[in-house]
Amino acid sequence: MPKASKKRTRRSQASVEGRAHAFPGAIWGLTILGSLSLNLFTIALLASLYEGHGPLGCEAGSSGFVAEPEKAVLLASPQSSAEEVEMVSAEEISVSSTTGSPPTSKDAIINLDHGDPTVYEAFWKRMGERGDIVLPGWQTMSYFSDVSNLCWFLEPEFAHQVRRLHSLVGNAVVDDGRFIIVGTGSTQLFQAALYALSPPDAAEPMSVVSAIPYYSSYPTVTDYLRSGLYRWAGDASTFEGDAYIELVCSPNNPDGSIREAVLSSKNGKTIHDLAYYWPQYTAITGAADHDIMLFTVSKSTGHAGARLGWALVKDKDVAQRMTKFIELNTIGVSKDSQLRVAKILKVVLDMYELPGNKHRLFEYGRRQMSMRWRKLRAAVKASGIFSLPEFQSSLCRFTGEETETYPAFAWLKCEKEGVEDCESFLRNHKLLTRSGRHFGVEAKYVRISMLDRDETFDLFIQRLLSLR
Amino acid sequence: MPKASKKRTRRSQASVEGRAHAFPGAIWGLTILGSLSLNLFTIALLASLYEGHGPLGCEAGSSGFVAEPEKAVLLASPQSSAEEVEMVSAEEISVSSTTGSPPTSKDAIINLDHGDPTVYEAFWKRMGERGDIVLPGWQTMSYFSDVSNLCWFLEPEFAHQVRRLHSLVGNAVVDDGRFIIVGTGSTQLFQAALYALSPPDAAEPMSVVSAIPYYSSYPTVTDYLRSGLYRWAGDASTFEGDAYIELVCSPNNPDGSIREAVLSSKNGKTIHDLAYYWPQYTAITGAADHDIMLFTVSKSTGHAGARLGWALVKDKDVAQRMTKFIELNTIGVSKDSQLRVAKILKVVLDMYELPGNKHRLFEYGRRQMSMRWRKLRAAVKASGIFSLPEFQSSLCRFTGEETETYPAFAWLKCEKEGVEDCESFLRNHKLLTRSGRHFGVEAKYVRISMLDRDETFDLFIQRLLSLR
Repeated sequence: MPKASKKRTRRSQASVEGRAHAFPGAIWGLTILGSLSLNLFTIALLASLYEGHGPLGCEAGSSGFVAEPEKAVLLASPQSSAEEVEMVSAEEISVSSTTGSPPTSKDAIINLDHGDPTVYEAFWKRMGERGDIVLPGWQTMSYFSDVSNLCWFLEPEFAHQVRRLHSLVGNAVVDDGRFIIVGTGSTQLFQAALYALSPPDAAEPMSVVSAIPYYSSYPTVTDYLRSGLYRWAGDASTFEGDAYIELVCSPNNPDGSIREAVLSSKNGKTIHDLAYYWPQYTAITGAADHDIMLFTVSKSTGHAGARLGWALVKDKDVAQRMTKFIELNTIGVSKDSQLRVAKILKVVLDMYELPGNKHRLFEYGRRQMSMRWRKLRAAVKASGIFSLPEFQSSLCRFTGEETETYPAFAWLKCEKEGVEDCESFLRNHKLLTRSGRHFGVEAKYVRISMLDRDETFDLFIQRLLSLR
Repeated sequence: MPKASKKRTRRSQASVEGRAHAFPGAIWGLTILGSLSLNLFTIALLASLYEGHGPLGCEAGSSGFVAEPEKAVLLASPQSSAEEVEMVSAEEISVSSTTGSPPTSKDAIINLDHGDPTVYEAFWKRMGERGDIVLPGWQTMSYFSDVSNLCWFLEPEFAHQVRRLHSLVGNAVVDDGRFIIVGTGSTQLFQAALYALSPPDAAEPMSVVSAIPYYSSYPTVTDYLRSGLYRWAGDASTFEGDAYIELVCSPNNPDGSIREAVLSSKNGKTIHDLAYYWPQYTAITGAADHDIMLFTVSKSTGHAGARLGWALVKDKDVAQRMTKFIELNTIGVSKDSQLRVAKILKVVLDMYELPGNKHRLFEYGRRQMSMRWRKLRAAVKASGIFSLPEFQSSLCRFTGEETETYPAFAWLKCEKEGVEDCESFLRNHKLLTRSGRHFGVEAKYVRISMLDRDETFDLFIQRLLSLR
């Protein structure tokens, strides 16, 4: 096993065995720092072997590997498209660490292809023991969480904190009539919704569409099982037909725009992916009130590793079919993650009830995002060869202030003459991003994660500033 | 919200907030007892509304609801079969609690349709704080666990304990060449294996087969998305064809028999579902060495709520494709559950390294199962209207003793004249079981969970003794 793994094993073990050693001083600090560096090292290493266009959830502008054998498979498959076969060449990349403060290497590989939300780690470290949870060995052994609930694997405490959260933020209607369905990330809930909205007895699969640029995983996740129930049908703006499922991601992954459905038909259905409708990224202009709304812990509190999302669903039959999907797919959702995230949400919410308290998640996130976007815009301006979307500011009902949009991803366009493929151009400068082609548009665009740790982000800005 | 849910919420909350209150005395005891009773109450209540043939994993002879709207759907679907449409009538069931010691009501509904492994709860309560884990708020936030591993979302500590476990028990080969793929229960891994073994470019879906009686969820889980990659093709024994995926569940769910593949062909593949190949259920006669072997925490330590399973996979390409499936399906697997189960397994394993220690999971399980089967066989004999399979004893290499088979499910045949439908007959006596029809055989058979809590099991035996 390589060194990196050993380090990680040791860290995990310590965490598993330890009891409430939240900030255990210098040795721990060094171990963690070392471990993080090695993680980044190996992520970069892997990036040289794997290609990135990631799985689901307008949530998961995040993970996403296509291993090489898979690529061969996709080439052979009738479903595959040109965008599936691109890969990062191993040869052109020399690996070095990209974390540590100050960065030890200015020419390290920087992987901002995935939206791994590690920017939030620092917040949770500052929270100390408050965010910890103890799970007794005998607890939650049963498959069942609450058999009186339609979603029988939903932990009541998790549901309670979710309702409390939306009530505080004001970003979605969570009245008593609304069903909460928990999922293994919003990725699973997206598939559950496709299953729930597709007629089971139709001769043809239901068309699934989203306006370009759409989240890069929607096509892949819709089609990987070649379901007879639904199939990817591309750009919603050019779709001709009456029956469809339209995916509306707002704020949109990848470009941060605020969106509404572009189609309208009696036989059409919509799924609203609201992974980024939180105060750190955009103004909360009102409580969303759509039929199916998807949220995820990954982009709200940053706990992507918990694999936890939730759907707010108006219609009982749809909620029942979504529950059925999750039952068949994974017989429910990790109770450990549900209890842990319930605790995390509770801490976030309790902090808003203490007057004068400074540990407020959304304010923290907003400060980070606003600072990063300021740096990014300055670097882009200085470079002279890139451009970024502009956003109008709006009144945020959560903060009570006029506020700008700070998306979780930068949708960068390369304006340099002669450069048609921005991803390749940046890769040649050891900067890994996701090509616009995966989002249904030109290769002049790339998507860049804004959610990595500070050290990585600052190195990214330096790199950008060095490009002409 | 009904009373049951409130009680549960309170319990969860206490657990979430508390720190290391493992056995908090009389009040807690009463609360838990009350909560458990109410759970059983609501399970029984739900059973009157929902029908049970359960999701996956020869693992999950466990959960499994088909909600009423779903049934309508299945009726309409071309995939549906007669077995999908049966339901429990709400009218004929009056609900009462089935737990508590001694049982307060002799005529309560007893739900042994699902294989909820609550028999292990008592063991973990006796283990006290040893099984507890603390999860710090800042930990495992990233999507990535170990990017140097093919299965990049596999926590190294979980993998380490899995290898240790198989080395101790001797039930499967886990040499270094073998890949470990973690899944959200073996249900997800089963689907990952179907995906991995099906040619992506075939004109026809791959045939998926298993010898009758096969686990009732195999057909449903194979077909619910109407995949173009694979489709359920029924009983392996009567299958004619060259290309197939054969599911081999051993010991078999539902009948406890030790199985090998019944088909053999160059183009055939097998998935070995070894959910019950543990010393509490059967003799460990050697280390299984198949291409794909599935295991689950639900039936080994009893932590069904963690939704965690693992596959041992020989072939790298297959392992990569399975990983890809899980990435597309849920972007990995709950790290919280992986760390928690790593701790659980560590405790189980450590107990085997302490000489003279009495807290040994497999011995505990074996004692329970052997006692329960003795009681069951006596009751069946006394009734005169049922029969059970007989098993040969074998030398168990783990215990070093000649040992009988004590399956996690009783495969009961009704021999009473005039009774063709054993499930209905038992349901009329408020005993909920799963009909043989769901397993591809006659309705004279039913499958009964042997893994419920003591109180429920004892009530079941009394009920059986009252039938003539």
